[in-house]
Amino acid sequence: MSLPNPVDPPRVTLMGPGPSQTSESVLAALARPTLGHLDPRFLAIMDEIAQMLRQVFGTDNRTTLPISGTGSAGMETCVMNLVEPGDAVLVGVNGVFGGRLCEVASRAGGEVTRVEAPWGRAFSPEDFERAAAGRRFKVLCVVHAETSTGVLQDLSGLREVADRMGALLLVDTVTSLGGVPVELDRFGVDATYSGTQKCLSCPPGLSPVSFSDRAVDVIGARTSPVRSWYMDIGQLTRYWGGERAYHHTAPINMLYGLHEALRLCLVEGLPARFERHRLHARALAAGLGAMGLELPVPEAIRLPPLTLVKVGAEVDEAAVRRRLLTEHGMEIGGGLGDFKGKAWRIGLMGASSSRGNVEGCLSALAEALQHQGVASRGDGLAAAREVYASV
Amino acid sequence: MSLPNPVDPPRVTLMGPGPSQTSESVLAALARPTLGHLDPRFLAIMDEIAQMLRQVFGTDNRTTLPISGTGSAGMETCVMNLVEPGDAVLVGVNGVFGGRLCEVASRAGGEVTRVEAPWGRAFSPEDFERAAAGRRFKVLCVVHAETSTGVLQDLSGLREVADRMGALLLVDTVTSLGGVPVELDRFGVDATYSGTQKCLSCPPGLSPVSFSDRAVDVIGARTSPVRSWYMDIGQLTRYWGGERAYHHTAPINMLYGLHEALRLCLVEGLPARFERHRLHARALAAGLGAMGLELPVPEAIRLPPLTLVKVGAEVDEAAVRRRLLTEHGMEIGGGLGDFKGKAWRIGLMGASSSRGNVEGCLSALAEALQHQGVASRGDGLAAAREVYASV
Repeated sequence: MSLPNPVDPPRVTLMGPGPSQTSESVLAALARPTLGHLDPRFLAIMDEIAQMLRQVFGTDNRTTLPISGTGSAGMETCVMNLVEPGDAVLVGVNGVFGGRLCEVASRAGGEVTRVEAPWGRAFSPEDFERAAAGRRFKVLCVVHAETSTGVLQDLSGLREVADRMGALLLVDTVTSLGGVPVELDRFGVDATYSGTQKCLSCPPGLSPVSFSDRAVDVIGARTSPVRSWYMDIGQLTRYWGGERAYHHTAPINMLYGLHEALRLCLVEGLPARFERHRLHARALAAGLGAMGLELPVPEAIRLPPLTLVKVGAEVDEAAVRRRLLTEHGMEIGGGLGDFKGKAWRIGLMGASSSRGNVEGCLSALAEALQHQGVASRGDGLAAAREVYASV
Repeated sequence: MSLPNPVDPPRVTLMGPGPSQTSESVLAALARPTLGHLDPRFLAIMDEIAQMLRQVFGTDNRTTLPISGTGSAGMETCVMNLVEPGDAVLVGVNGVFGGRLCEVASRAGGEVTRVEAPWGRAFSPEDFERAAAGRRFKVLCVVHAETSTGVLQDLSGLREVADRMGALLLVDTVTSLGGVPVELDRFGVDATYSGTQKCLSCPPGLSPVSFSDRAVDVIGARTSPVRSWYMDIGQLTRYWGGERAYHHTAPINMLYGLHEALRLCLVEGLPARFERHRLHARALAAGLGAMGLELPVPEAIRLPPLTLVKVGAEVDEAAVRRRLLTEHGMEIGGGLGDFKGKAWRIGLMGASSSRGNVEGCLSALAEALQHQGVASRGDGLAAAREVYASV
């Protein structure tokens, strides 16, 4: 085999379901010199990361840290620590990630009860209450932001429902953290995991998690060891906390990147950041609507960072995505599960959430559809600009 | 809380047990623009990584890929996939990482039998044969390069021993890959995990693993699902292999770094790279010996990338390490377990394995000892230079 050339990736406008575009200063942080993982200067960086994560998560939870793996590792960390063999787990499934929670909980030995909602719809607290039917559960699992559908789940009322079933409340915030308010403490969330490559606009590779003191107590009272040594939150806390007990070697340069990504969130200010995500999602929706494209998710539960777009049978949706990538240097995502081959997922996450991207995407989509001989109903760009003009 | 400043880590000469120094071109690769994880150009990069990994591992194993976590995640991946509840596992323990293998195997439900050797010593094939006492085992686990002691385990004869007990051969190559010959196929290794932050000189965050076809068959014949969804090698293979079935989002920028790190190995050439590691370790050992410092690991089993140095009771070993870090910008490691407070671990791994580092370290150690009023017996620098002059 001949030796490969050095990597030379082109700059792509990332508007899929993640990764989002990485900010220049985050890329630069990744390339700073590697420190030893026990160097006092690195330990200080870890402390700052944990403190900034608490702010972005909206929590005082001491047990707040990034897992050294991607979002799915964070999911598994939460589930593996909270669930012991035989534990009853109630999971809301309205997309891929609810389904994955069931799979992970089942492998952890949990007895899983699924509560289903149609893909593209959210749950009411009563849906869970009804499914529980008076039984007790160890954990109630809900996806805050379903990356497969672009549905935002309202967390109001879930704490009370969880309390009535004696459950801890576990929430997937992979695609919400840094893009929409998460506010763990306000909603009484006991455990959560997120990803870095969505609204934080850091490359994939880390999964911020947070556990309430109540969840930590439940983990401390386990009768069997956590099945994963790598994801054992007790040991991870002793490494990230004051003891600095060696566990594994932290992904140092990735953590530099996360540090900078969190800094950028706080420099912008969380309320301004959330408003930015809302504005550009609104402009995108207006443009897509004007073009005659349908958004299957009702506006009230639409996730600003991720918009699901229905694709008519007359359109070769994969060919449009390929054309966007090759001719426009722009990536959007395809549908998953119920929406496979029938929808696009357009991400406006973190650094990708910008007016330039909204207008660029609308204009590229119009061109690609026209290339297939599909006429747009109206002028998407003009409709988006109207939204911008109105603010 | 006030907003932290951007990370601004100083450039430290990393001569501990890992991370080693990251090459400039690897740092630059980390900072290249993020591609989508399903972008055809990224998939090509994944293929090149897998192919280069096979070369460095010395294997044709199809199932060769980096796990999206650090070395401990790779250990857990190997164990969790190979071990089902009730399986008998034989583990050689002569340092921290053998002990960790026991812990991980036990959490996976394995029935673990430990074979102990003193810290700082290696095993003979007969040690395992005797411990097995005619019983059959599912997996025989051996650490090729014990990061806690700097012992290199000869792999010769282990395949035959494993065969006689009906076992798969699992080998920890965290601190050997890229620094000493690994040659999986030659030694009949069935499963291995490594790390990126040792002799590959890429920052921590990925764990290259490789599984023989025989191991893949055994995993395929499991009667229970792998307890970890994140580390399920069957699913990971479908993502890394031709199917590209979405599993988790690969750590894109970290993989750019690994691609470049592997390229640097192959550009240098593996034989030259191994010889470089041997030469600088020899010079370091000569220098330390001349200074009157004792190396507890016998020369025949000494690991070139990592040298264990005994510290006399008259020396405050932690103060020496602190002084190296603050006054000399150089990191060396302390002892672990049996050697805690009684030894240093000096790494010469990957980019850190250089004449400048050997001479810088000997001279810094002499200064730091002198600062404590401890006289060196002789001139370490001169002894090291003699080694260099002789080649």
